[in-house]
Amino acid sequence: VTDQQAGEPKPFDTVWFLSDYGLEDEFVGVVKAVIRAIAPHVTVGDVTHQIAPHDTRAGALALARSMQYLTLVPSVVLAVVDPGVGSDRRAVAVEAGGDEGPATVLVGPDNGLLASAVAMVGGARRAVSLTNDDYHLPAPGPTFAGRDVFAPAAAHLCAGVDLAELGELVDPVTLLPGILPLSRQEDGEVLGEVLWVDRFGNVQLNIDPDDLLLMDDPLALVFGDKTRTAVRARTYADLRTGQIGLVTDSYGLVSIALDRRSAAEELRIHSGDAVTIRAAE
Amino acid sequence: VTDQQAGEPKPFDTVWFLSDYGLEDEFVGVVKAVIRAIAPHVTVGDVTHQIAPHDTRAGALALARSMQYLTLVPSVVLAVVDPGVGSDRRAVAVEAGGDEGPATVLVGPDNGLLASAVAMVGGARRAVSLTNDDYHLPAPGPTFAGRDVFAPAAAHLCAGVDLAELGELVDPVTLLPGILPLSRQEDGEVLGEVLWVDRFGNVQLNIDPDDLLLMDDPLALVFGDKTRTAVRARTYADLRTGQIGLVTDSYGLVSIALDRRSAAEELRIHSGDAVTIRAAE
Amino acid sequence: VTDQQAGEPKPFDTVWFLSDYGLEDEFVGVVKAVIRAIAPHVTVGDVTHQIAPHDTRAGALALARSMQYLTLVPSVVLAVVDPGVGSDRRAVAVEAGGDEGPATVLVGPDNGLLASAVAMVGGARRAVSLTNDDYHLPAPGPTFAGRDVFAPAAAHLCAGVDLAELGELVDPVTLLPGILPLSRQEDGEVLGEVLWVDRFGNVQLNIDPDDLLLMDDPLALVFGDKTRTAVRARTYADLRTGQIGLVTDSYGLVSIALDRRSAAEELRIHSGDAVTIRAAE
Repeated sequence: VTDQQAGEPKPFDTVWFLSDYGLEDEFVGVVKAVIRAIAPHVTVGDVTHQIAPHDTRAGALALARSMQYLTLVPSVVLAVVDPGVGSDRRAVAVEAGGDEGPATVLVGPDNGLLASAVAMVGGARRAVSLTNDDYHLPAPGPTFAGRDVFAPAAAHLCAGVDLAELGELVDPVTLLPGILPLSRQEDGEVLGEVLWVDRFGNVQLNIDPDDLLLMDDPLALVFGDKTRTAVRARTYADLRTGQIGLVTDSYGLVSIALDRRSAAEELRIHSGDAVTIRAAE
Repeated sequence: VTDQQAGEPKPFDTVWFLSDYGLEDEFVGVVKAVIRAIAPHVTVGDVTHQIAPHDTRAGALALARSMQYLTLVPSVVLAVVDPGVGSDRRAVAVEAGGDEGPATVLVGPDNGLLASAVAMVGGARRAVSLTNDDYHLPAPGPTFAGRDVFAPAAAHLCAGVDLAELGELVDPVTLLPGILPLSRQEDGEVLGEVLWVDRFGNVQLNIDPDDLLLMDDPLALVFGDKTRTAVRARTYADLRTGQIGLVTDSYGLVSIALDRRSAAEELRIHSGDAVTIRAAE
Repeated sequence: VTDQQAGEPKPFDTVWFLSDYGLEDEFVGVVKAVIRAIAPHVTVGDVTHQIAPHDTRAGALALARSMQYLTLVPSVVLAVVDPGVGSDRRAVAVEAGGDEGPATVLVGPDNGLLASAVAMVGGARRAVSLTNDDYHLPAPGPTFAGRDVFAPAAAHLCAGVDLAELGELVDPVTLLPGILPLSRQEDGEVLGEVLWVDRFGNVQLNIDPDDLLLMDDPLALVFGDKTRTAVRARTYADLRTGQIGLVTDSYGLVSIALDRRSAAEELRIHSGDAVTIRAAE
């Protein structure tokens, strides 16, 4: 933790940090302490640490939703949802970005967590397996890679270390892809899936509002063995009490919502559930 | 997000942020990313994000309790508890402060959330409706005003943009007032209300300790259909096990407390409940 | 809050903050506002604020686990788990550190919370009781020492005020010791105790892996009236479904773990429970 190159240019002064570490334990604080020791000029911003333990799908989705905002400034994105920690899954850093503009580097396990986020910002330019233990913290056991491998890598990148020094370059096509479910249209219906239930109980689907353009209100939502009637609305407050709305949410996708109540609780619908939308009869 | 005026003076380098966004989702992180993109010199401090969803009363009270500390340095206060997001409720920025000293600017929905906090720091000098969309982020839907309207406004204010540029000036008297319940004295009793139950189960009332000066211990607490006996105490540790105390809390109000246990749980009393205090018989 | 000495050297620009304040209320935000007012150059990092209310043992353990990382940079460590707030328990600042290297100052109640952390970084050099109320915030009641006593002390130390100015120097040997349970070996068994259950349900014991070197796998775990068979493993992913592992955790202690499931939930074992390990029959 002492090899910070004082003379190097500092390509990043922001690390965005997402994990399933929660806030009950000291994990997040310790990771920040390691970053501060290596790259004291860096501000670490929390994306969220309340991803359900080991839920790489939820982590990947939260990261993908956030990326266009996190990358408004040149940033390193540190993401750790890592059920395979200490196993032979690779620890990686991925330099991503289109031809124009500065690169973003994403640091985390190669388990699909980073894939959608990398795609969101233009795809991978270079990737490295974090095998150079000159840039690891010594540790008694292999179970806290966030502290011992990922945080030092993120911090050294901010301090000016080149990606290629952190380990062996790997072909980006060998990175594990993310598996984001696509909706499809069939017989005038749209078959989708719940991507996310947010704190307010809004239920985001993997459905584009344009896919519903040819259907007239009211619409039928079919999930599990239930069918409920819904109407399109511009915002939550446009809904009458108890009325189920389909709102174009802040990410441009269709969300099922109620006014000031949790649609997820009311409908007993969960992340990953299949939802079909069709014209109501 | 690119129109930061590099040459402008920077009137604020601190944004205090309170919301009901919770920490499970990426909302808070994304808001901070937007602020950092517009005003990279700013430190964002979290007041709390665990206000119950849509609970503007609880948000207003937390903000009012915090204001005298948040304004120890020149600050923009960003507060978002916004059940009417996207409706015709106004989005506002309010410049507040007495004649002396620097102003504080509060940014949030015009739904009563900001009113007590504005009063706490000397009242409103100027207010603006955030209608100038040059200072909004483009967004697919209107449901995340924290990200698209309020955060950019707070950040541009920190970067030196004048309040008046953010939209139409509005008369501060048209801002929605907060509704803070007042206690009253009647027939030698004090009739109050629970303002807040804190994490430790202490129960803050809207009652000034001076209003109890003419009563002798022990006192009777009457709430719901229950009556319990309480004594005044200087601090929690002065209470015997199981003894109910009335403590002058850190905000100068009367709080019902137990030593090392939750008074709220023990007494089954909640925010908003009516409480009468009188001399015990 | 105005007596910051602009000309003084600034010995610390980092405060690490641990408490049982939770994140539901505004306590943590207000403490940070006080620090920022006194020492605006300081970055406050959160260790955790979700220590169970009044649980000084859990707070002391979290602090001890974190210290070697928090002190990678010169820091003030602010720790507040303080059931005796306002009573005659002392409020202290303890300068700690071995002969080499810079000191760390720990600020908090003298109730055992700081003791193990002080020992971790080389023991106490000097200690002071925070009795000089020139460095306190005036407050209506004594129940929020984090805001009124501890935060100002931490901030003034960062701003260059010497420890000795904050109150009366006290002999470090009079500081309340922490009570960390030691494991022991007896008749070929190791008798230990659960120190910590982390978010993932891993169960950290106060047992050194070396103490198990003379035993062959499988091992028997005895706790309550239960006996379960366990095997040593290098990491979680090495365990078969349902297999109970003993892993050397990231702090060098023996942890009971399952792969991708909570060992604590599965075994119904809690912090503070006694656990005996012996060779399975």
